[in-house]
Amino acid sequence: MSQLAAFADLAERMADAVRPIAMGYFRGGLAIDTKADTSPVTAADRECESAMRRMIEDAYPDHGIYGEEHGSVRLESEYVWVLDPIDGTKSFVTGRPTFGTLIALLRHGEPVVGIIEMPALGERWVGVHGRATTFNGKPVRARACPDPAGAWLYATTPEMFVGADAEAFRRLRLQSRAAIYGADCYAYGLLANGTVDLVCEASMQPYDYCAVGPVITGAGGIATDWQGNTLGLESDGRVLAAGDAKTHAAALAALAG
Amino acid sequence: MSQLAAFADLAERMADAVRPIAMGYFRGGLAIDTKADTSPVTAADRECESAMRRMIEDAYPDHGIYGEEHGSVRLESEYVWVLDPIDGTKSFVTGRPTFGTLIALLRHGEPVVGIIEMPALGERWVGVHGRATTFNGKPVRARACPDPAGAWLYATTPEMFVGADAEAFRRLRLQSRAAIYGADCYAYGLLANGTVDLVCEASMQPYDYCAVGPVITGAGGIATDWQGNTLGLESDGRVLAAGDAKTHAAALAALAG
Repeated sequence: MSQLAAFADLAERMADAVRPIAMGYFRGGLAIDTKADTSPVTAADRECESAMRRMIEDAYPDHGIYGEEHGSVRLESEYVWVLDPIDGTKSFVTGRPTFGTLIALLRHGEPVVGIIEMPALGERWVGVHGRATTFNGKPVRARACPDPAGAWLYATTPEMFVGADAEAFRRLRLQSRAAIYGADCYAYGLLANGTVDLVCEASMQPYDYCAVGPVITGAGGIATDWQGNTLGLESDGRVLAAGDAKTHAAALAALAG
Repeated sequence: MSQLAAFADLAERMADAVRPIAMGYFRGGLAIDTKADTSPVTAADRECESAMRRMIEDAYPDHGIYGEEHGSVRLESEYVWVLDPIDGTKSFVTGRPTFGTLIALLRHGEPVVGIIEMPALGERWVGVHGRATTFNGKPVRARACPDPAGAWLYATTPEMFVGADAEAFRRLRLQSRAAIYGADCYAYGLLANGTVDLVCEASMQPYDYCAVGPVITGAGGIATDWQGNTLGLESDGRVLAAGDAKTHAAALAALAG
């Protein structure tokens, strides 16, 4: 097994490990806490991240870790794991099954492995540099959408677009077929599956988007920031993913105004 | 079996019948059409409604039917069925499993049976006048939320609030804990389950909301228009559902401005 394949294997075992932990808290007795940014944080969030961190420390103690809940270690390492134990916490605490777990591995700052794991739906996307993205083990492909006016566009909420970003998103929305909300990380998986054409978001953290890159690019799509740059730890939290290069270019132009 | 129980039994058999039809088109080869209001309509939509109408005509040929796809018959009847074969068509065509089928039976204009069927999730809420609402066969209960500031609020999209409704919804959103988007009919089911506190929507058609009333009230919640009136065929398309009477009253006040 190549080194990258071994890392991807660990990432899948991490996803296997978080699924029962997350489901143990879903629709059950939630211990909801409040962070400074008012997003809900559950015991599930912390336990899932702890379980994943233990697995990384056991297998690759020299790798860095950047987690939503338990902070960062060894970010100067060649390999850094970026973890979002529960993406879509508002869905999670309201009993909606479209929350996910995001697992990314970066090499020299570039995402090379990405997993979108949907514990309550029993669905998983795995993206690995140089391989075709899989959905529950089967290769998937983003679809062509040469006409931007035909694009189905997703964003988690219009409230994530602050200041000038709100007007930029509005331009993109009016140029697209329709905007659909409320999907969190799931929208990127649907784009990889070829049933969604665009995902545009802002106010994101690295653990929200690092896993997305390998999943999208391994399905033939494009995932960048709003300037067209590759996503990484240093990105500004604005994400634009598309299945079709023409629609991606048209969306970049709409966002730029 | 009482007459109402027999009607509820038919409604469940209708939900059983649409599930495989809808799933046969989900994430598959969709024949997408466009209606005047630009909402996508699929072959699944038409086939599901036709199947349900046949079952009603066979069992109760004197009952009226109000369907999204195939129009109205016998609306002057004591009993009228209101059908939305695919609620959340944008979710459906983009491969997101949170679309549903809505089945309502009205007696003298008042909803007495309501079903929220989620084909892709294998979940179903059944509300029958005088009975406890069930979720996959088990009774459920909406939860208390005496403080409106703690309420988790759902709406399908902020774009459904047009003109003064947009400002009214904004007041409600700022008074609540958070607004979450993109759930269509599923949000009302989650409210009946006691994991969501408020659902506020507008620009709705009778087939979008008639099934909601019996599901919510059978779980101890309240479902009205924005003036606090019971929902029926003649409602104006604005819906406010809550699990707690205090939160419902505070939401009515926020919407009134």
